[in-house]
Amino acid sequence: MKKIVLLRHGESAWNKENRFTGWTDVDLTEKGIEEARKAGDLLRKEGYVFDKAYTSYLKRAVKTLNNVLDRMDQDWIPVEKSWRLNEKHYGALQGLNKSETAEKYGDEQVLIWRRSYDVAPHALNEDDPRNPRFEIRYKDVPDKELPRTESLKDTVERILPYWKDVIFPSLETADQILVTAHGNSLRGIIKYVRNIPDEDIVHLNLPTAVPYVLEFDDNLNLVKDYFLGDPEEIKKLMEAVANQGKKEKK
Amino acid sequence: MKKIVLLRHGESAWNKENRFTGWTDVDLTEKGIEEARKAGDLLRKEGYVFDKAYTSYLKRAVKTLNNVLDRMDQDWIPVEKSWRLNEKHYGALQGLNKSETAEKYGDEQVLIWRRSYDVAPHALNEDDPRNPRFEIRYKDVPDKELPRTESLKDTVERILPYWKDVIFPSLETADQILVTAHGNSLRGIIKYVRNIPDEDIVHLNLPTAVPYVLEFDDNLNLVKDYFLGDPEEIKKLMEAVANQGKKEKK
Repeated sequence: MKKIVLLRHGESAWNKENRFTGWTDVDLTEKGIEEARKAGDLLRKEGYVFDKAYTSYLKRAVKTLNNVLDRMDQDWIPVEKSWRLNEKHYGALQGLNKSETAEKYGDEQVLIWRRSYDVAPHALNEDDPRNPRFEIRYKDVPDKELPRTESLKDTVERILPYWKDVIFPSLETADQILVTAHGNSLRGIIKYVRNIPDEDIVHLNLPTAVPYVLEFDDNLNLVKDYFLGDPEEIKKLMEAVANQGKKEKK
Repeated sequence: MKKIVLLRHGESAWNKENRFTGWTDVDLTEKGIEEARKAGDLLRKEGYVFDKAYTSYLKRAVKTLNNVLDRMDQDWIPVEKSWRLNEKHYGALQGLNKSETAEKYGDEQVLIWRRSYDVAPHALNEDDPRNPRFEIRYKDVPDKELPRTESLKDTVERILPYWKDVIFPSLETADQILVTAHGNSLRGIIKYVRNIPDEDIVHLNLPTAVPYVLEFDDNLNLVKDYFLGDPEEIKKLMEAVANQGKKEKK
């Protein structure tokens, strides 16, 4: 059985502060590092040996991956980073507190930005210092591909070429692959491989740092997908993500 | 000016325990992590922006690199790992305490193994569990290229193809490159670029985690090479390495 393991990064400083993060390069918290280590211990215990790993250009994903690999004694495996695995770009909302944004624009509008499939937040102005065109890390990305905001639909469309052309084909020579990325970029992959409708994918909430395994047969057809770990604990984590959503609606 | 920065990893657990390490995958100590962070802070302060980084298959080098890049906020840059950048293979000595080895084989013999250019320690037996042919990380390396022991000459010969074919040519499109590796693999690079005779290279002792800068002109000729940082502090570190050598001779 060939396997691709998807892993959402551990808690970041802005998860904790309840701010819209998007492409902002926020660090992991101590708790986030611990979550990553725990995921690494679990993957090691389950006998995973990765041939290759993929991650985004954002340090919360890169450092989650580094910590996972280190706990598995697999620091040496090849890692490829791509901007296409970045989190959904949150446009002009990036950096704003989610509750304050709700006060300013109303609960309903914020919910639309956060949970609709094809509505994007206001775009960043061209001269906004947060605009990715000013960042050296994106110097090799054609400007017309660099987002100033994104709906989930945009994120999915931006990530799929990388999944189809790079990650998935690497299964032909590799048996086990790890992808460490973000809530919305991983939604894009799961939506595609499981053929989930637009209106349902917005309700899929991946808990942080819980490995989600995709199993493929020899013809590379998906045969099974599941979270790795203690089902009771995962249930609690899923509920915590759901409750976090509720709290923010207030 | 194009630049390649060479960086020896921070203190490892076996540096501290005074054991022959070689290809053993020993972790950094807390001090080693601190040294790496300090190197990252220095490179950041000096304005370095790396296009690409290279490191070995050994976690003390990978984790030094990860810590450096994190302090520079350059976690996102592409990293390529190669077994060719590994430390000199110490053969049957790997894991042994240096003082105990001196008691067993005599000071003179140990000095020959440690400081001669072309004498290798006893080779590992084919069925020795330390033999790299048993390690999954070397599965793609042809068996005849996998060492069971190495002289410094062997190490230099193993590293040079990677320098000539991969690292150095990448300067054609990159301006700044970081190579995080080991005392002896970096000796190989420095011997080659500075054309240092066999009998002299064995006396070049790189301090841990002090950036060593190679500057090249537009025709990729070496024009300047120097340690980065406070000259007084570097002098002390070089003396410490020299004294460490003396202590071991006793």
